[in-house]
Amino acid sequence: MTAFDEATAITPVSDGCYHIRPDERFAIVFGDGTAGAVNGGVLLATAARAVLDTSPHPYPVATSAHFLRRPRPEPAQFRVAWLKQGKTAATARATLLQGGACVMESTITTGTLDDPGGDTLSWACGPPALPPLSECTRLASPSGRPPRGGFASHVDLRLDPATAGWLAGRPRGVPEMRAWFRLSEDRDPDAYLLALAVDSLPPVVFGLARVGWSPTVELTWHMRGVPAPGLLRVATRCRRVSGGWFDEEAEVWDSADRLVAQGRQLARVGRGGPVWDAGA
Amino acid sequence: MTAFDEATAITPVSDGCYHIRPDERFAIVFGDGTAGAVNGGVLLATAARAVLDTSPHPYPVATSAHFLRRPRPEPAQFRVAWLKQGKTAATARATLLQGGACVMESTITTGTLDDPGGDTLSWACGPPALPPLSECTRLASPSGRPPRGGFASHVDLRLDPATAGWLAGRPRGVPEMRAWFRLSEDRDPDAYLLALAVDSLPPVVFGLARVGWSPTVELTWHMRGVPAPGLLRVATRCRRVSGGWFDEEAEVWDSADRLVAQGRQLARVGRGGPVWDAGA
Repeated sequence: MTAFDEATAITPVSDGCYHIRPDERFAIVFGDGTAGAVNGGVLLATAARAVLDTSPHPYPVATSAHFLRRPRPEPAQFRVAWLKQGKTAATARATLLQGGACVMESTITTGTLDDPGGDTLSWACGPPALPPLSECTRLASPSGRPPRGGFASHVDLRLDPATAGWLAGRPRGVPEMRAWFRLSEDRDPDAYLLALAVDSLPPVVFGLARVGWSPTVELTWHMRGVPAPGLLRVATRCRRVSGGWFDEEAEVWDSADRLVAQGRQLARVGRGGPVWDAGA
Repeated sequence: MTAFDEATAITPVSDGCYHIRPDERFAIVFGDGTAGAVNGGVLLATAARAVLDTSPHPYPVATSAHFLRRPRPEPAQFRVAWLKQGKTAATARATLLQGGACVMESTITTGTLDDPGGDTLSWACGPPALPPLSECTRLASPSGRPPRGGFASHVDLRLDPATAGWLAGRPRGVPEMRAWFRLSEDRDPDAYLLALAVDSLPPVVFGLARVGWSPTVELTWHMRGVPAPGLLRVATRCRRVSGGWFDEEAEVWDSADRLVAQGRQLARVGRGGPVWDAGA
């Protein structure tokens, strides 16, 4: 069992209620070594586990989540309420509570990804261009140095050097990122890892020299395919930054060149010191 | 008061409960003249009205909605429950019920669009290229012919001819649309009209020759700016169609060339006859 699977584990306690624990190992660590909030993708993966536990369909095809409070690394509860269970899709509300207050409100529609009606219409855009893994910039060393990184020490992210200039103090002035993505531990991608991947890259505004804690306010992601084994590629872009808000669109591609997940989040522009550094 | 404002009106009946009525005038009309479901954007605009009625902040910055059942043109209720009211943002759940069953589950985070903290970081992509209004293809004539169109007769949509080939049986094979957008009645854009605009264009899969009723399963939209008076431009694109599912991303631009709203929906590929026709 990987640290990721432990961090996203659910314990059923009663009808529709699951105990979980936001895991510090997946918290963002600030430049001064203090831990920030647990990564939102970890909470999304945990929500998917809670909903799929009683879902008539196997995949979380559409998940929308609003982040209200910073989760503490203490016991918390997911309350799952089904709003409809249909033949093609089923929808549940999954509310994350800590100390009686709502930390995250999510709604998840589950379904199958092959059409039982046999619709064969298909169309796809092409995958993002990324240099080979060996030519990419490791964001944090998963081994050989102290795990100061929290989240960063449990994922193996290799940034396209074209989008990594900010790491060396030379941001390109374009809010986009591209990277190879996998867990530091050996584990093939699935729905839960896709939930992590859509919120795994450094915030796009780092490319505009605004490096700091950028809290997600809302994130919606769609699962579009069952990922093939192997590395994922994640590409993010932004369309507007203004009034302290920015959007970040994420596409996740599998090793078979298929678009397997899409996400978009609205977040607050970060302030404060750097939270990432380049690995060895 | 325009038909749109009437169709999205709310009547408070008790704490957090609002009576509404899904309005047939904004239903999609099928090729055979029968009315389909009321346009999802109309429901999103109504949800925004219900939440803003008691919101401490003026704008619906992030709205996510899951569509569970087809609304009937009969009385319905929005139940609004606040999950948090904070200084920067406030989040409410707004559930649309009809006959005791959930028709649409939405979560709305409200906020201001100017940063009270004074963050001045800004960045923006450019607007979509569209031919002048006079060179675009009118989708349905808002006057001079019988209003067989429902929704189509209350909006004035002018499609970029490059994305309108499907109207003449010559789809271009690319799932994208671009159009000028306004109400048929004279009314300047605001948050409610943006909620309509993000779900106003013909489904992108019409560009792949799949013309028919394409039900939205989930739609999330972000309000990014207060729109200037005048026409809006809406551009949609798709990244993958497979297994009977497709995504549709929408960007809405105002007359001052600012990106004022972004949306993304996951929908089912339509079947059945044409639901739009070219205007006079």
